[in-house]
Amino acid sequence: MSVEREFAIAIVGGTGNLGTALALRLAAPGVKVIIGSRDPEKARAVVDSLRPRIAHGMIEGYANQEAVQQAEFVVIAVPYEGHATMVAALKGQLGGKTVIDAVVPLNKGRPFVPAAGSALREAQEILGGEAPVIGALHNISAVDLQDPASSLGDVLVCGDDAGAKKNVMELIRRIGARTFDAGPASHAYVIEGLTGVLIYLNRKHKSKHASVRITGIGE
Amino acid sequence: MSVEREFAIAIVGGTGNLGTALALRLAAPGVKVIIGSRDPEKARAVVDSLRPRIAHGMIEGYANQEAVQQAEFVVIAVPYEGHATMVAALKGQLGGKTVIDAVVPLNKGRPFVPAAGSALREAQEILGGEAPVIGALHNISAVDLQDPASSLGDVLVCGDDAGAKKNVMELIRRIGARTFDAGPASHAYVIEGLTGVLIYLNRKHKSKHASVRITGIGE
Repeated sequence: MSVEREFAIAIVGGTGNLGTALALRLAAPGVKVIIGSRDPEKARAVVDSLRPRIAHGMIEGYANQEAVQQAEFVVIAVPYEGHATMVAALKGQLGGKTVIDAVVPLNKGRPFVPAAGSALREAQEILGGEAPVIGALHNISAVDLQDPASSLGDVLVCGDDAGAKKNVMELIRRIGARTFDAGPASHAYVIEGLTGVLIYLNRKHKSKHASVRITGIGE
Repeated sequence: MSVEREFAIAIVGGTGNLGTALALRLAAPGVKVIIGSRDPEKARAVVDSLRPRIAHGMIEGYANQEAVQQAEFVVIAVPYEGHATMVAALKGQLGGKTVIDAVVPLNKGRPFVPAAGSALREAQEILGGEAPVIGALHNISAVDLQDPASSLGDVLVCGDDAGAKKNVMELIRRIGARTFDAGPASHAYVIEGLTGVLIYLNRKHKSKHASVRITGIGE
């Protein structure tokens, strides 16, 4: 699977802040975006509200499982509380697709390490190899994503499948972010947890834009 | 304890890369630096090798426990394998001092979460409240520290004692780094783990300078 040909990306749990913001950024350069929700009516309502802001590009709304069927990439963007349930519900329909897990384990806004080691490892355990799971997009400010004029922080991408990781990095570069191969799936707890630190920094500095940049390599 | 008056900083396990580099940067603006080692001869030999590079400032070498006695700040800069042993050996001598824990749990260069939750939490558990433990300096490139002309990445500082955290941030600003209050001790696993990601990025990009910068707050 290459990102050079026409492809579609489904965002499950896509009616939240990250999901809708990501949809806007991805649809802009012409990626077909399918917003998934447990409630297909809600998915369609969100799509209707986004459409006026999308000059080109296709965006549609479906129930999560229908959304996934039509896509090569599946972004999981639910709150952590719904993560395991969502991944389990999609199991059996992900063959040949790449899962992008953007979920951050938070407890009252504070990061923690779940029993599986990270949200990504939890998804890997549930899926048992059915599809590669790549961690990405955790640290991007949804507020900055929503504003096409805002520059984005760097996106740290991790996972154990080198080909899938490369495809995801190519995909994310389309939304205007720098991407870095940040290592294997075992690094996911760091990248997920970093969002908790950024939430803390935002709160302390009354900002919504805290993000990270990598310096000192290849510059 | 304020960093405005004359004070001394001990670096235990100070003969390694991070310890010696930190000694150079701290001694430059006139902080009294005491390098500690299990072997006092080794500490003195390292100090003799550093002295020609320090125009002003005081630097001395002692056995770890003697080094700690003379200091208000104690930096722990040993490899993770020696962390718990070192903290336990210093217990009982840290009253009134502030511990700066810069240790990163690594296994063959890969970050992991130790049983206590982080190196910092491990130190807190061992010390049982004898002294505040502040996490800092994990993510700084030792190579950049050694070169006074190199700019440094941002230093994320965490811990549960607000006063001690503030003092440590003031201290670290003296070495020319920006500092951020990155939250409570429960965030330490993220900041420690980030070093493992930076090691991965350095290896992949054949660099020794990978570091992080925080953007989007107060700029």
